[in-house]
Amino acid sequence: MTVNLSALNAASPAAFVATLGAVFEHAPWVAEGAAAGRPYATVTALFSAMRAIVEGADDARRLALLTGHPELAGRAARAGRIAAASIAEQAAAGLDRLSEAEIARFEALNAAYRDKFGLPFILCVKRHGRASLLATFEKRLDSTFAVERRTAEAEVLRIAAIRLDALVSGDGPLETTGRVSTHVLDTRLGRPAAGVAVDLFEIVSATEAALVARAVTNADGRTDTPLIHGRPVPMATYELRVGLGDYHRGLGLDLPEPPFLDVVPLRFGVAEPEGHYHVPLVATPWSYQTYRGS
Amino acid sequence: MTVNLSALNAASPAAFVATLGAVFEHAPWVAEGAAAGRPYATVTALFSAMRAIVEGADDARRLALLTGHPELAGRAARAGRIAAASIAEQAAAGLDRLSEAEIARFEALNAAYRDKFGLPFILCVKRHGRASLLATFEKRLDSTFAVERRTAEAEVLRIAAIRLDALVSGDGPLETTGRVSTHVLDTRLGRPAAGVAVDLFEIVSATEAALVARAVTNADGRTDTPLIHGRPVPMATYELRVGLGDYHRGLGLDLPEPPFLDVVPLRFGVAEPEGHYHVPLVATPWSYQTYRGS
Amino acid sequence: MTVNLSALNAASPAAFVATLGAVFEHAPWVAEGAAAGRPYATVTALFSAMRAIVEGADDARRLALLTGHPELAGRAARAGRIAAASIAEQAAAGLDRLSEAEIARFEALNAAYRDKFGLPFILCVKRHGRASLLATFEKRLDSTFAVERRTAEAEVLRIAAIRLDALVSGDGPLETTGRVSTHVLDTRLGRPAAGVAVDLFEIVSATEAALVARAVTNADGRTDTPLIHGRPVPMATYELRVGLGDYHRGLGLDLPEPPFLDVVPLRFGVAEPEGHYHVPLVATPWSYQTYRGS
Amino acid sequence: MTVNLSALNAASPAAFVATLGAVFEHAPWVAEGAAAGRPYATVTALFSAMRAIVEGADDARRLALLTGHPELAGRAARAGRIAAASIAEQAAAGLDRLSEAEIARFEALNAAYRDKFGLPFILCVKRHGRASLLATFEKRLDSTFAVERRTAEAEVLRIAAIRLDALVSGDGPLETTGRVSTHVLDTRLGRPAAGVAVDLFEIVSATEAALVARAVTNADGRTDTPLIHGRPVPMATYELRVGLGDYHRGLGLDLPEPPFLDVVPLRFGVAEPEGHYHVPLVATPWSYQTYRGS
Repeated sequence: MTVNLSALNAASPAAFVATLGAVFEHAPWVAEGAAAGRPYATVTALFSAMRAIVEGADDARRLALLTGHPELAGRAARAGRIAAASIAEQAAAGLDRLSEAEIARFEALNAAYRDKFGLPFILCVKRHGRASLLATFEKRLDSTFAVERRTAEAEVLRIAAIRLDALVSGDGPLETTGRVSTHVLDTRLGRPAAGVAVDLFEIVSATEAALVARAVTNADGRTDTPLIHGRPVPMATYELRVGLGDYHRGLGLDLPEPPFLDVVPLRFGVAEPEGHYHVPLVATPWSYQTYRGS
Repeated sequence: MTVNLSALNAASPAAFVATLGAVFEHAPWVAEGAAAGRPYATVTALFSAMRAIVEGADDARRLALLTGHPELAGRAARAGRIAAASIAEQAAAGLDRLSEAEIARFEALNAAYRDKFGLPFILCVKRHGRASLLATFEKRLDSTFAVERRTAEAEVLRIAAIRLDALVSGDGPLETTGRVSTHVLDTRLGRPAAGVAVDLFEIVSATEAALVARAVTNADGRTDTPLIHGRPVPMATYELRVGLGDYHRGLGLDLPEPPFLDVVPLRFGVAEPEGHYHVPLVATPWSYQTYRGS
Repeated sequence: MTVNLSALNAASPAAFVATLGAVFEHAPWVAEGAAAGRPYATVTALFSAMRAIVEGADDARRLALLTGHPELAGRAARAGRIAAASIAEQAAAGLDRLSEAEIARFEALNAAYRDKFGLPFILCVKRHGRASLLATFEKRLDSTFAVERRTAEAEVLRIAAIRLDALVSGDGPLETTGRVSTHVLDTRLGRPAAGVAVDLFEIVSATEAALVARAVTNADGRTDTPLIHGRPVPMATYELRVGLGDYHRGLGLDLPEPPFLDVVPLRFGVAEPEGHYHVPLVATPWSYQTYRGS
Repeated sequence: MTVNLSALNAASPAAFVATLGAVFEHAPWVAEGAAAGRPYATVTALFSAMRAIVEGADDARRLALLTGHPELAGRAARAGRIAAASIAEQAAAGLDRLSEAEIARFEALNAAYRDKFGLPFILCVKRHGRASLLATFEKRLDSTFAVERRTAEAEVLRIAAIRLDALVSGDGPLETTGRVSTHVLDTRLGRPAAGVAVDLFEIVSATEAALVARAVTNADGRTDTPLIHGRPVPMATYELRVGLGDYHRGLGLDLPEPPFLDVVPLRFGVAEPEGHYHVPLVATPWSYQTYRGS
């Protein structure tokens, strides 16, 4: 449920803080400070004000913003003692579906990180697939306290930006979301390919792929909504599986068995969670092309 | 080791039969008959003569040609009581690497087939991947004796043709072989992509892929020899995995992490074991195209 | 200047006829009849009513609708004795820029047609390029009176539909317009190609090409407006000339001289004036692809 | 008519000079010197020896090698007072088919060049199309004597290399030739496109294109011989015109009129006369791709 910025500009300080108090975990003081700075012309201006309040806070408070943060897939998470937003974010990254072995690995990494830096490991999980999340965790373990403190605060701000963008509508949105879309063209007939099944998987490991989205192309050869939109696209490797063989059989084409092209896998990596990844398929029963489009 | 046709034309009947006696399993009489018809101008003419001898034989002999044939993955095979050529052919189809469950399945199919038709199940295994082999086996179980007898003899002749082609060199070869080849082009630089790793897998099932060939492209962007050649290409679904990301990193390109394109999977089906499947990759770090080439 | 349908529904009969009287050349009686049938829910309903009035008219009136029509590039046209809309339509087809030889040819064709059928040659010129117009003219000269009378009336209705669509806005437009658009993608960098000059030419003959539109791609690699839109796309062969070499030089690429690709010509034919012809260019300095997109 | 290197190694000095005396225009002394250095293991070794003789000659002789050279399209050329090889080379560049205006332009350029540098303008014309030849001429007019003397000698050596390559066969050829080839693939049917007409034009100017080669694709979708081979490919812009529409009509396809794709123009530039320009067309009735292949 989003609130319009103008409504927030007009709201009582209490109502303002009630709405935005959890944007920074366990730190309603950021929203309280921002309430005083109203009105804001744009959501970006509101966020800049909150960032300034964080950066202007005294050292103890700034550090507490990090130490108060829940661990990834940690005991607190599984015991539910964290903000609703955190639960949703960790679930999105599949952290609520970890195997016992994976939980053990996370706890070991969390412990090692806390031992070394005296901080919980903080990462904006919505921007990472599971493989990238673990790789980042291990890389950051090799870092220094000074670097990690800066990195952790930057991640806290990323988390806050995504939460704010989801809570508040208005001019100058923060653009914390990315997109994965496709478009299937039939160049044998020179027209869009309608009724084609497209499944998007996240490649979790050499042996595991997780279904992220499933759709069928419309009369224009596109899916009615992008396969991923309205949120960051987690950094990961994806595979779009396009049911080209069934499409051609559906047109009454007599394909060989097995057909030269049946389910076409388009494997691509996402490195910019806020980017637009348009991955079209331009195809015939005997050829296809894909590219990063727009 | 191949013999030249002219040498076979000049050889003693005994030497001729010693060389070609096993082309038809347990049936040296076919070679004996063919010896009398020499000389042969082409390998195809020699094979036509052998086919005519089989088709001209009396009913009992013709049937014995089928009943004497070893079962697929059968006890005889595993006990080694079959022609060396059969062992090699069954190994090529992976029938010597079956799991206990798969062996049990084959034995059940073999038994059901023998019970229904009084014949061993005969198939030119070199022309089938494992999935296609099982699918064909089950389809043929639903057939009739008359049809199966014709089909089995046709498969015996296919097996013989491949063996003859491998044994005898000369004009008018039988063309029992197919080809899978690739060519990687770098359209960012407008030149062949050299030093690219290409692995060819047979897709055995949703979870199993068997490595068939592994190569690296040469200065012309091709592999020094086709990925499959000199034999039929088993009917199956294949996946060519091309190391595009490593190639671009090797050129010093600064790719995102993960790169948009890393290992590119080209999945294609082979329905004509004697066909030429040229599957090129025309690529940049952000696009690629493939097609059935020539 | 367009009038809204609801305004026309509310207008006086005189005002209604003043607006739509020239939709059918020299035949205000069609608009007069339509005025009585108001209100109309959609522009399509209004046109259907006008069509019904034409088809319901007595034979003499229906024939007069054809005989009263101006000739193509005829004396009347050049003497300005025809409806303003006709002048614009004929100008669009380049009929006002004919050479003396071409005028002579049109007059000969007009005369031959009038001699054979006792009718002026009637064609919805907005739907034809010059070459297609002449080819159609010659083909129709070989027809019969009965066929030509039907064809001529159908063309009169096409002309009227386009005029009505241009005059009246509202629900259920007639969709008398087509589109030519492009999109330039740089697959070397994996992003849209911005600032690329694209010129659209109509290929009038082996030696003559007429510039139809000139644009530069925006940040999304598209032109701000389609190259042709808001009108039928004349049946013709077109060539889109894309300044790929200048684009790459502008990025600081060191191209050979001459570059492998400089101005890329994309030549395509338009057979459906109401169709959407999306002709993208997916390119690197060493490769490109185009297709009929959507 | 080519002589084998081993024959030249064995020939009398007189015969050797009779064969190679004209490789350097009006300078048999180069061949005479080379005769003494025999035997040569490769054609390249023979050419290196000739080059060394030129570079080792005294200044007067070295300069005479330039001053004795015929002008491009000059009076001498048209009066036939130059080596047969020069006549053929200039004809290849179309210099024997110049209009009066072009001849006047060449004479003006020749005169200006001779006035400024006291040398004839020397260029290996076989490596240039007409446009590139004129552009180079004008650029070199702006140069200095020292640079031009070096450039002219380098061009004399290029001319000599091409002549030697054409006269002498043997190991280590000089590779003075390039290639233009094509390959047409039908990705609607997944096979080579046979019987397709391909014409190669040199784009001489905005209004002039000169037919260079005309061929029809064979069963493999290629031309039996490359469109240009066995000689340098003149630096120029070319257009390959592929009869795709006729090919599809010939297959009985019912194309719109005009078809979306009819004669497909592939325009490309050649900057390396000794390079291989493989320009394939991968097409359907509604799409095509080309690239610099190999």
